[in-house]
Amino acid sequence: MNIVDNLIENIIKTKNPSVIGLDPDVRKIPQCYKANIARPEKLDGICEVIYKFNCDIIDTVYDIVPAVKPQIAFYEKYGSCGFMAFEKTVSYAKSKGLIVIEDAKRNDIGNTAEAYANGHLGKVELLDGSVISAIDADFLTVSPYLGVDSIVPFIDACRNNNKGIFVLVKTSNALSGVIQDVVAENGFTISQNIARYVSEQSEQQKGKYGYSAIGAVVGATYPVEAKTLRKIMPFSFFLVPGYGVQGADAEDILPCFKCDGLGAIVNSSRGVLFAHMTDDERNSCTHEEYLSNVRTACLKMQSNIYSMLRKNHKEMIY
Amino acid sequence: MNIVDNLIENIIKTKNPSVIGLDPDVRKIPQCYKANIARPEKLDGICEVIYKFNCDIIDTVYDIVPAVKPQIAFYEKYGSCGFMAFEKTVSYAKSKGLIVIEDAKRNDIGNTAEAYANGHLGKVELLDGSVISAIDADFLTVSPYLGVDSIVPFIDACRNNNKGIFVLVKTSNALSGVIQDVVAENGFTISQNIARYVSEQSEQQKGKYGYSAIGAVVGATYPVEAKTLRKIMPFSFFLVPGYGVQGADAEDILPCFKCDGLGAIVNSSRGVLFAHMTDDERNSCTHEEYLSNVRTACLKMQSNIYSMLRKNHKEMIY
Repeated sequence: MNIVDNLIENIIKTKNPSVIGLDPDVRKIPQCYKANIARPEKLDGICEVIYKFNCDIIDTVYDIVPAVKPQIAFYEKYGSCGFMAFEKTVSYAKSKGLIVIEDAKRNDIGNTAEAYANGHLGKVELLDGSVISAIDADFLTVSPYLGVDSIVPFIDACRNNNKGIFVLVKTSNALSGVIQDVVAENGFTISQNIARYVSEQSEQQKGKYGYSAIGAVVGATYPVEAKTLRKIMPFSFFLVPGYGVQGADAEDILPCFKCDGLGAIVNSSRGVLFAHMTDDERNSCTHEEYLSNVRTACLKMQSNIYSMLRKNHKEMIY
Repeated sequence: MNIVDNLIENIIKTKNPSVIGLDPDVRKIPQCYKANIARPEKLDGICEVIYKFNCDIIDTVYDIVPAVKPQIAFYEKYGSCGFMAFEKTVSYAKSKGLIVIEDAKRNDIGNTAEAYANGHLGKVELLDGSVISAIDADFLTVSPYLGVDSIVPFIDACRNNNKGIFVLVKTSNALSGVIQDVVAENGFTISQNIARYVSEQSEQQKGKYGYSAIGAVVGATYPVEAKTLRKIMPFSFFLVPGYGVQGADAEDILPCFKCDGLGAIVNSSRGVLFAHMTDDERNSCTHEEYLSNVRTACLKMQSNIYSMLRKNHKEMIY
C-alpha cells in the first residue's frame, strides 16, 4: 500500500487530521521525568529522559492521532547519543502503528542528496553487501533552496522504498516571504514555482485516495497563500505547521484541506506537549497528571479541527 | 582569537586557501580499508571503515591544508553509529590543528533553529546543570530558505561561542538559479539579497584581518555572480564548492578572493579523495599508494590555486 494511503487510513480511523510534533525541549519536559536518572552529568542521562518522555507521549496518544513528527534538531543537538534516542523513538512510534514524519529539512546536491535520501528514506548497503534501513521514517521534510535538481534524489527514494516527502513550500514563520514570496519572471512566486514542481512530481505517486506521497509544507499562518497553493497542488498532501502556539486557528487551516476532508495534516508540537501547563505546573505534577493533560490537549485539537471541517465540507469521507 | 583568524592563519601557514571535503562515500573508499573489519554485517563495521579512512586522510594532509569539511550526509546515513564516526572525525581533525567546517546545511525556525545552533555550534545543558559541546565544529553551513529570521539563532551561537557559519548564497549546482537567481522587487536577486543580509551581519564579527566569521557559500561554477557577490560582501569569507570534479578551474575561483589573497576557501572532495584513481586502481592499491596519491592531489590543487592567485594579486599577504 502507498505510504500516503497508510497515513490517510490512520486519519480516517482516528477522525483526526493532525500530527503531534515530538520536540522534546528538555527545559520544558516535566521535572518528574528528570528525577532518578542514573547519569545526569552525561549525555546519555539526558537522552534517557528524552526517550522515556517520547514513549509516554506515544503511549498516551497513539490511539487518537494518526502520526507523530519528531523534529530531529532536538535530538541531534545531543550528538550521536541524541540521534540514537531519535532512532529509538521512530521505531517505537512505528511499532504502535503511527506514521512517522521526520522533520529534518534536509537538502543538498548530487551524491550528497542521495546519501541523505538513502539514509533517511531508504536502505544503506553494508560491507557484506546486505542492505538495511538506518533511520526508516515514513516521511521526511526537504528544503528546496538549492534548486529542483536537489529534490530529485529524495523523490527517487520515495518511489523505490514507498516513502514520502514534504517539500518546504511556504513556511509558517514571520519572514518566510523574504525568499518564498518573491515573484519570478513567469509571474509565480518562488513558493508557487516550487509548488508547481511538487505537483508535477506528485502525479506519478498517487495512492488509492487520489493523493500523492510527494507533499508540501504549507504554513497555517498564511491561509490566503494556502488557498492558491491548494489549487496548484491538487494531489499533494500538505503538512501544516503554525497551528496553536504560532498563532493560526482551526479556520486558518481550512484552505489546506480539500472537500473530502483530506489533503492536509496539521501539526502541533508545543501546544500539545507543553503550552497547556505553566512551567510551575509541569515541574510539580505527576507523570499521570501531565499525560492526562497531553491527552486532553490532543483531543481538544482533534475536536476543533474536525468540527471545523465537518461544518464546511458536507462531502467529508470520515 | 576570532575563529576566522584561526582559519586565516592556517591558510597563511600552508599557503593554501583550500579545504578537503571529507565525504566518505563507502562505495569509493579503497578496498584495502574494507578488509579485516570485525563486523562487516553491522553498521559499526562500516563506521569503523569511515573513521579509519578519515584518520588516514587527516594524517596525510594536516600539514598542507588549513581545514577539512566533513559532509554530514555521508555519516548520518548510517544513523547514530555514523553520527558517532562524524563526531570522532571532528575531534580528530581538531586535535591535528585543522579547522573543521561542518557541511550540514541546517535550518529551521525559532526554538528549533536554536536547538541546531546550540548542538552544532555551541553548548548544551545537561541534567545536572553542566554544559558541554556536543558536536563542536568550528563552522557550520546554513540554508536560508525559511527567511532571514531563521539565520538569527546561528548568528547568536557564533557570537556567543566564537564559531562561524557559511550561509548558502549561490550554490554550485546546475539548477541553483531556479530560486537563487530570481530577481526580487528591490532589483537584487534572491542570492544577492541573502548576501546583503550576510554582509550586514558580518560587520559585527570581524577579526584582525578584516574578515568575518559570518560567511557565505558561493559556487566556483558561477564566476560572474561571484564577482558581484564579492562586492556585496566585502568582509565575508566565502566557502567555494564546485572546483574540480564539478567543473570549475583555478581561474573560475579568482572572483571569490580579494587582492590580499584571502576571503575564500575552495573545497575539493571527490577530486582529492577519489577522482585521481580509477575504481580498479583504488580497489587494488595499498594504503600507502592510495594516501600518497591523495597527498599529491592535494599539493597539485594547492599549487594551481596558489600560483593563480600569485599571478593576479601582487599584494597577496602570503
